[in-house]
Amino acid sequence: MIKVKGFKFSGISIGLKKSGKKDLGLIFSEKPCKAHAVFTKNKVLAAPIIVGKKIIKKNNIHSIIVNSGSANACTGKEGILATNKVLKELSLNTNMDAYNFFPSSTGMIGQQLDYQLINKNIPKLIKRLKGTSIKDFANAITTTDRFTKVSHKKLRIGRNNYNFLAVAKGAGMIHPNMATMLCFFLTDLDFEIKLFRKIINNATDMSFNSISVDGDMSTNDTVIGLSNGTGGDEIITNKSKTLSTISNTINGMFLDLASLIVKDAEGGTKFCKINVHGAKSKKSAKLVARKISNSLLFKTALFGSDPNWGRIIAAIGSSDVAYINQNKIDISIGGHLLVKGGLEYSKSKIADKLMKKKEVEININLNSGKHSSYMLTNDIGINYVKFNSYYTT
Amino acid sequence: MIKVKGFKFSGISIGLKKSGKKDLGLIFSEKPCKAHAVFTKNKVLAAPIIVGKKIIKKNNIHSIIVNSGSANACTGKEGILATNKVLKELSLNTNMDAYNFFPSSTGMIGQQLDYQLINKNIPKLIKRLKGTSIKDFANAITTTDRFTKVSHKKLRIGRNNYNFLAVAKGAGMIHPNMATMLCFFLTDLDFEIKLFRKIINNATDMSFNSISVDGDMSTNDTVIGLSNGTGGDEIITNKSKTLSTISNTINGMFLDLASLIVKDAEGGTKFCKINVHGAKSKKSAKLVARKISNSLLFKTALFGSDPNWGRIIAAIGSSDVAYINQNKIDISIGGHLLVKGGLEYSKSKIADKLMKKKEVEININLNSGKHSSYMLTNDIGINYVKFNSYYTT
Repeated sequence: MIKVKGFKFSGISIGLKKSGKKDLGLIFSEKPCKAHAVFTKNKVLAAPIIVGKKIIKKNNIHSIIVNSGSANACTGKEGILATNKVLKELSLNTNMDAYNFFPSSTGMIGQQLDYQLINKNIPKLIKRLKGTSIKDFANAITTTDRFTKVSHKKLRIGRNNYNFLAVAKGAGMIHPNMATMLCFFLTDLDFEIKLFRKIINNATDMSFNSISVDGDMSTNDTVIGLSNGTGGDEIITNKSKTLSTISNTINGMFLDLASLIVKDAEGGTKFCKINVHGAKSKKSAKLVARKISNSLLFKTALFGSDPNWGRIIAAIGSSDVAYINQNKIDISIGGHLLVKGGLEYSKSKIADKLMKKKEVEININLNSGKHSSYMLTNDIGINYVKFNSYYTT
Repeated sequence: MIKVKGFKFSGISIGLKKSGKKDLGLIFSEKPCKAHAVFTKNKVLAAPIIVGKKIIKKNNIHSIIVNSGSANACTGKEGILATNKVLKELSLNTNMDAYNFFPSSTGMIGQQLDYQLINKNIPKLIKRLKGTSIKDFANAITTTDRFTKVSHKKLRIGRNNYNFLAVAKGAGMIHPNMATMLCFFLTDLDFEIKLFRKIINNATDMSFNSISVDGDMSTNDTVIGLSNGTGGDEIITNKSKTLSTISNTINGMFLDLASLIVKDAEGGTKFCKINVHGAKSKKSAKLVARKISNSLLFKTALFGSDPNWGRIIAAIGSSDVAYINQNKIDISIGGHLLVKGGLEYSKSKIADKLMKKKEVEININLNSGKHSSYMLTNDIGINYVKFNSYYTT
């Protein structure tokens, strides 16, 4: 049974989702947590993001409340008021401050949040809190997800076992309206706060900021980490011997969840890792990988199992990178060299076979520098179009 | 019968296209032309682009040779040699210089150009030149186009009638490999060269640089204008009274052809104009329009006739524009207001009806400045995916 010391969870159904499935979740820590959050870069922000940005600054978070079924985005002042009314109700029910609670929403855009329905159910939500109810919470935050996304690791540090838990949701911005990527990371290990922020930022960059389902960005995307230090008396700093083990563990967990989001892309049939090497900077490498991962022509070729390197090289050339020498580009699929120095190297049937796999790895070497990056992506097939073009309103 | 004084055309079939359709075209002017070209911004450049960039600088062009069936892209030194061999053969057959000929190619990427096949047919290509053979030329430059794209206008200036002709090809970067956007503009009116460059650049910005079929950019895109001054003795300068009529005419022609390219997008069922008003700069307005026109979620909603403004506003927020005030955004479809001040304004069935039309106009007002721009785009439907995912090699 997965547990993180000092954290309790609940997830209930209150009718925000028409399906009747769980749609309200709570994470609660008796002790205040060190907290850090990374938010969407979209300039159109949902109400819980606007409120959450203020709350995270107070650095006194005990709890996260999440509703699915409604994104509370494009809801103006009324939407912000609704989020604040929920936090107020939580505060009244717990004798805590409203800013001890961090809000998060996901679901349909443009409709007002039914905060009265939520508030009516807050006593029940609190009553159901249990250290073992992670699955209920994970279910309550899903929208079009086909499966819940949970990663749990234990590490022995000094005399104690510490727990790391990450729960995510997301499946592209898809039918019937846009969905959102959310990740809640919890640990009972204590951290120096600046280091905690750095670890969460890095792990997010290498995972949730390195995936592209359809190139669209939600108004609600949030990654938040909470550390309550209940697992023992260690405090991890820059000088801790176990630091690299800990950050590798968290990086791995985030990457696992990001991969699951890509694999859960609705209408997707394939998973693809695009590695770019030999760039002049890490940023250039990322821009090239991102351009390919967003290329509709590449994504449809992936769907059709076509090792169409012309589409890959055209995407490389059209990325926003200052320097590309087309005569130095190498491209391989699954370790099989297709293009060398910008020219076709082989037309072997091996590439055809490799493109037919469920998981495809593309390696690009720009041979112009020492930096690398990658993106995780999926194909765009008939079902993606079907899911996203159904009439919704 | 369309004619431009002093220009002759031909288009023949030589076997570069497996279908046996016309695949080699020539435009020829007895008099040298003032010339200006705009090339793809892709950093992976096809051989004819690399060679053409040098030739345009010599400013002594009489002729344009275009082949379809092979893009001569990603073909390295051998590809450049092939293009030069074709120009050399033209020079030998006409007693002119190789740099009097401007090369252009479109079709499959990554395969070497069969220049020997082309050269064998050059005498025939020249022999067929006629002032009335524009249609043959227009056919010879098509790839996956469903129809040829020709625009012709006449203007009376002073004592003479002058002709303006533009022939384009393009239908998105589509099956079986990427295609290309090409436009050849010819006139028998004379221009001061700096002004001619400016006119071609402006008309290109407002047309071919304002369309997005699938967000991908070809390695071969070219717009070239030739003016041979054979129609009379007028020379258009900055001070000419007819200047605005002339540039409006050319702008209109380019926009017509750009619209035809979008309407010819394979798998496309709808044509959409996205107008962005009230931006802080023209560039910002264009960036917002471009982001929406490239949003896969918007394009699939367009396919499904879903007036899903949440996807539009999320695309606006994720565009690379420094300043967006979400509380000022208005969105209307076909003149019907859907969103006002970032909030849903109406859910009327009128929007549903308007989204079902074959041509949809979206107006966005950011209400933050005085600048406007637009993009022309198409939907992405089931057939787009089918066309682009078929296995090709």
